[in-house]
Amino acid sequence: MQSVEQSFVAWAKMRARRLPQVKLGIGDDAAVLAASGLDTVVTADSLMDGVHFHLDQVDPKRIGHKLVGVNLSDLAAMAARPTSLFLSMCLPNSEEAEQTDLLAAEIYEGVCEAAEKYGVALAGGDTNCWNGPLVLHMTAIGEAADGQVWTRSGAKQDDLIVVTGPLGGSILGKHLDFTPRLDWVEKVHGKIDIHAAMDISDGLSVDLLRMCDASHCGAVLELDKIPFSPEAEELSRTDGKLPVEHALGDGEDFELLLAVAPEDLAPLQALVGAEQALVCGTFTSRTGLWSRQGAKIHQLTSSGYVHGR
Amino acid sequence: MQSVEQSFVAWAKMRARRLPQVKLGIGDDAAVLAASGLDTVVTADSLMDGVHFHLDQVDPKRIGHKLVGVNLSDLAAMAARPTSLFLSMCLPNSEEAEQTDLLAAEIYEGVCEAAEKYGVALAGGDTNCWNGPLVLHMTAIGEAADGQVWTRSGAKQDDLIVVTGPLGGSILGKHLDFTPRLDWVEKVHGKIDIHAAMDISDGLSVDLLRMCDASHCGAVLELDKIPFSPEAEELSRTDGKLPVEHALGDGEDFELLLAVAPEDLAPLQALVGAEQALVCGTFTSRTGLWSRQGAKIHQLTSSGYVHGR
Repeated sequence: MQSVEQSFVAWAKMRARRLPQVKLGIGDDAAVLAASGLDTVVTADSLMDGVHFHLDQVDPKRIGHKLVGVNLSDLAAMAARPTSLFLSMCLPNSEEAEQTDLLAAEIYEGVCEAAEKYGVALAGGDTNCWNGPLVLHMTAIGEAADGQVWTRSGAKQDDLIVVTGPLGGSILGKHLDFTPRLDWVEKVHGKIDIHAAMDISDGLSVDLLRMCDASHCGAVLELDKIPFSPEAEELSRTDGKLPVEHALGDGEDFELLLAVAPEDLAPLQALVGAEQALVCGTFTSRTGLWSRQGAKIHQLTSSGYVHGR
Repeated sequence: MQSVEQSFVAWAKMRARRLPQVKLGIGDDAAVLAASGLDTVVTADSLMDGVHFHLDQVDPKRIGHKLVGVNLSDLAAMAARPTSLFLSMCLPNSEEAEQTDLLAAEIYEGVCEAAEKYGVALAGGDTNCWNGPLVLHMTAIGEAADGQVWTRSGAKQDDLIVVTGPLGGSILGKHLDFTPRLDWVEKVHGKIDIHAAMDISDGLSVDLLRMCDASHCGAVLELDKIPFSPEAEELSRTDGKLPVEHALGDGEDFELLLAVAPEDLAPLQALVGAEQALVCGTFTSRTGLWSRQGAKIHQLTSSGYVHGR
């Protein structure tokens, strides 16, 4: 345990890019971030071997990318500008210590690449070895761009349900290589009044119901309008589900889910393009989650199973 | 996984005390902390079953206390005032879902108790289930009390090596129930010029060497002055090590290790009491870690083994 920690921390300190928002980075008991005068936005997410990735099937660097992505996606959903990341690794002991060092270095490299891509500093964390599977944890810190964050709780009756891209089938690759919607937020924040926002991590139907619960309203999804990805179609060819069921039920899309007033749709689409502001239904005063296809309305299950198909 | 997450988040949101520094707490994609105008200090630490505790031998609430303690100890070492905590749990799946819920609730209760004790808000985190052992992760956020943090890197030749309490034998209980030295810091910060500080988590000899490396100096420990705990004595009666070897080599004391100019010792002891400012050696310009007993000087190993005993 000691050997990984010591050599690793020394190398990690060199590898991480220095950015001015970090006054004191890797190597002390804690990191010091310069005061910005803005509210601080904080999110935390873990990735575990066998749950969020399979270490024996994927390049560890891509796991590092994913770890950064899921955390930045949460900050994007709050309209926060990310400033710094904190990485914790629980590394599985190997017969040979070099194996553990190599794994740590590859994950770290992936985290650093992603941090550089999105202009965020890797400012600290901790590293441990154990006899369990790989667990990665990240805390991402951002600032509220102009003091205004987006939350889940502001959706109103008659707001449109908008998503930033096609959904479903992310298991075929997108769950590792998605792009957190920071650019989208940058374009829209302060220009369009977004009533509510969250990222779609557990599937459209589950996450939309969470937004409805937080906003004390309900929602009707138009089944024919829900945008599904080519990967959702690909899966549906072999597993007997409809593509729209993948779009509703699959997790880890990491697109944004938004509540937007009908009159704001055209200006929103003018800013980001129609293909990144896709309407798939309407929020309602009646609570619960409903699907409409033609004249038929059914209650939706959280798995995304489509009634009467 | 869903059932724990959903019911747990709802309960957790109710249970966590609200404090004014948290503008938006548990339940959204991220938490929002009010801008303070001060630098932000961030630390992260993980605890893993089989490494930092044994779940089958300890009340889960005490694990929650320890998790808060290790993180606040890091903030104390930086002279930061803690404001908020973020808890992530990787919970082992049980045959019965209630078992997992119960474990989550007990740990959470311990975390909440400790958070209340130290006046810190629990502001967010994430909860997952998996087929691995329990892993807990915490990120603690604080503010730099008057813009001045303590670091590891300021120790100077002739500074005294000072610790805040007796060392060794924490495995007998203190590693779960220690008190992070926030009160000590509160009394001293801004009044005494502390040249360097860190908390002793991996043992005096290992951590002192880290401070020396960061400060580009060395240190001589006076073996007869190193304060050892009754627990270090208790262990030494059966395992054949000297009590001072336990004080040097045992981890998880979570006392502070400090570099203090000789002329500042008396004022420091006047503030905190002589028993909380114990001198055990001197920093030197010659690098490396050395022990002195009478006229004999030896290089110290990081395990704390005492030469020629």
